[in-house]
Amino acid sequence: MSSYSVFRSKIPVRPDDIDMNRHVHSSRYADYVHAARFDQMERCYGMSMEEFAELGMGWVVRTSHVEHRDALRMGDVAEVETHIAEIRKYGVKVEFTIFRESDGKTAARGWFDYILVNALSGKPVTIPDEIVVKYSI
Amino acid sequence: MSSYSVFRSKIPVRPDDIDMNRHVHSSRYADYVHAARFDQMERCYGMSMEEFAELGMGWVVRTSHVEHRDALRMGDVAEVETHIAEIRKYGVKVEFTIFRESDGKTAARGWFDYILVNALSGKPVTIPDEIVVKYSI
Amino acid sequence: MSSYSVFRSKIPVRPDDIDMNRHVHSSRYADYVHAARFDQMERCYGMSMEEFAELGMGWVVRTSHVEHRDALRMGDVAEVETHIAEIRKYGVKVEFTIFRESDGKTAARGWFDYILVNALSGKPVTIPDEIVVKYSI
Amino acid sequence: MSSYSVFRSKIPVRPDDIDMNRHVHSSRYADYVHAARFDQMERCYGMSMEEFAELGMGWVVRTSHVEHRDALRMGDVAEVETHIAEIRKYGVKVEFTIFRESDGKTAARGWFDYILVNALSGKPVTIPDEIVVKYSI
Repeated sequence: MSSYSVFRSKIPVRPDDIDMNRHVHSSRYADYVHAARFDQMERCYGMSMEEFAELGMGWVVRTSHVEHRDALRMGDVAEVETHIAEIRKYGVKVEFTIFRESDGKTAARGWFDYILVNALSGKPVTIPDEIVVKYSI
Repeated sequence: MSSYSVFRSKIPVRPDDIDMNRHVHSSRYADYVHAARFDQMERCYGMSMEEFAELGMGWVVRTSHVEHRDALRMGDVAEVETHIAEIRKYGVKVEFTIFRESDGKTAARGWFDYILVNALSGKPVTIPDEIVVKYSI
Repeated sequence: MSSYSVFRSKIPVRPDDIDMNRHVHSSRYADYVHAARFDQMERCYGMSMEEFAELGMGWVVRTSHVEHRDALRMGDVAEVETHIAEIRKYGVKVEFTIFRESDGKTAARGWFDYILVNALSGKPVTIPDEIVVKYSI
Repeated sequence: MSSYSVFRSKIPVRPDDIDMNRHVHSSRYADYVHAARFDQMERCYGMSMEEFAELGMGWVVRTSHVEHRDALRMGDVAEVETHIAEIRKYGVKVEFTIFRESDGKTAARGWFDYILVNALSGKPVTIPDEIVVKYSI
């Protein structure tokens, strides 16, 4: 079990997220997690994606794993809870759960491996110590 | 100038809205307006899209016209202001302006012609009087 | 009536384009036109978007106008026909019609004003003469 | 190793798939696989998604697992190769590899668990024998 902090972001469902089954389209859950990470990087970890970009670095997805439970629908708000599960040399593993705000039911859960890369070369970058410190809360 | 009420909804920019120019992708402004309409139909006009669906009706876009001004970026919140410009036999013309929340600058403006249709046949439906009343605020 | 050449591109409908009404979502028609323009810039006009980028320039949408007719559905292929309607100092007006491949019916039609900009500053750029020549076919 | 047939579909990259890093946005690889499945269900397995819908059934994603390798860019065509890895009581596991058409490099690989559901109730449905036969090629 991770000992790192858990943070939550609210992502409202938009009409363009809804698919032919009248559910949030399956690939959009990953987008909700990325949106939550952007929010939490700035608000919770004190270093926004823009600040990484200014240092010539960026985060990319290496692996995504999403388990779908109870589909979100139009009118729902996704509550996306994430925490860092592991800090590695070149990246972090982030675990997430997406809840439906109205009833607290789990809509999806899973994890993402994000890799820190040089924005120009695309090559993996060793996570700087000061970022390891920021992410170790 | 329309004498109908003006309503505002806040739509946060998501990472998956950003395009290769690091701006909100041009077609997403229409999606922000539709999201604002869904919100305002329920919250401001007292009849949600779901209630139209239960009556066997739905709203579809007949014509969209979008003028782009100052592009939104990651981290921005779109403030979408809409008002009904005209109520017609089969539909409504909705005018909108999208502002950037942080500085109030206009990101886009334009209008949509929405048509009320029978959900099964897709044929235009005369707007019922009670809906004309709801929309005439 | 424009005297410039008319070109066609085929864009297959994807499942993630379909909305809650089981039609191609209204804002995706604009995306199909942009996809057709990318294809035609390289294949028909002899200058790809990448070549513009190498010159430090890019095309952005100033105004979009889309009239919806007969909605596309899953399994359809969009045939996007475009032609340049007007070449201006800073941009071009492109008119389009989207046909359903299977029966030739018109799904949507309209026009886009594209502006040529400096990729760094975002400011409009006078269209270079050699590009005016390429676009005057 | 699966003994079921391997099929390929070509999915061209669209401008609206490109993200702020000028790569195909990470969640779109899942969309490319779903698009390939739609194509292959009709063309290779002899039963389209529409035919399932007419029987009151539909396929939904239960779990998705995507490993990203060499990012696709504007101008690329995704060659999506899928095969059924396992046929279960309520669903199938589909493994996929996405190649870049121009050089054959692997862009992404992974698997999806799809569940067959009753379109109205959303409850899992035992895969009918005749569909097991169709999928066992």
